[in-house]
Amino acid sequence: MIAKWLNRIKWDEHGLVPVIAQEVGSKDVLMFAWMNREALARTAEIGQAVYWSRSRKKLWHKGEESGHFQKVYEIRLDCDEDVVLLKVEQAGGVACHTGRHTCFFNQLGSADGQPDWVEVDPVLKNPDDIYNK
Amino acid sequence: MIAKWLNRIKWDEHGLVPVIAQEVGSKDVLMFAWMNREALARTAEIGQAVYWSRSRKKLWHKGEESGHFQKVYEIRLDCDEDVVLLKVEQAGGVACHTGRHTCFFNQLGSADGQPDWVEVDPVLKNPDDIYNK
Repeated sequence: MIAKWLNRIKWDEHGLVPVIAQEVGSKDVLMFAWMNREALARTAEIGQAVYWSRSRKKLWHKGEESGHFQKVYEIRLDCDEDVVLLKVEQAGGVACHTGRHTCFFNQLGSADGQPDWVEVDPVLKNPDDIYNK
Repeated sequence: MIAKWLNRIKWDEHGLVPVIAQEVGSKDVLMFAWMNREALARTAEIGQAVYWSRSRKKLWHKGEESGHFQKVYEIRLDCDEDVVLLKVEQAGGVACHTGRHTCFFNQLGSADGQPDWVEVDPVLKNPDDIYNK
């Protein structure tokens, strides 16, 4: 099948596109990851987020180990056609491998009078309970 | 000055970090861009988004031509310390160079019975009026 919509995307030199996952409802930005052509095609096909793991160099069906699947409600593409935005429902309410709701839990604030990153969001689930089931 | 908080960031092989800009209030994801160390330091210093333009290979103070500055309310860093999330107020309500509120105006839908990208968000301001002032 000719996937015209996949051809519209300007894949980078590694054949990847950056992907932002945003939660429907709360509109929280949950995480950021990458997809290759196969990952995006699969995401559209099954309606769940499938990323490309750059470290493991393989498709990563988010939730396959943790159960924290992302049901995809919308797939958007930006003006330059090189960034994807997913609107998802986050199973378990936990997107981050640290057990937090989102991956963006470090906020620039100050510590000891110097600017520094401060963890501002709570751990909702023990990571040991996420992965060692 | 030793900028410990900047050293925490895992800059990529080009010395850059991906940045997501999210609007405070609406929580809309406005755009995606890149920053180098100088851009992020400057952003924190002046409280307005300063990106690194990969095409022009220079600092890009968002709004310098369009007037569509982004006032920064929060700077966040993800769990892997390699992605930044800005929470911003968008001057003029227009983040995209096409004159739309956000850059993510293409939604995967269907056209002529085939999956395709559909422009779903309105142009709020004529791009000619943004840049040819």
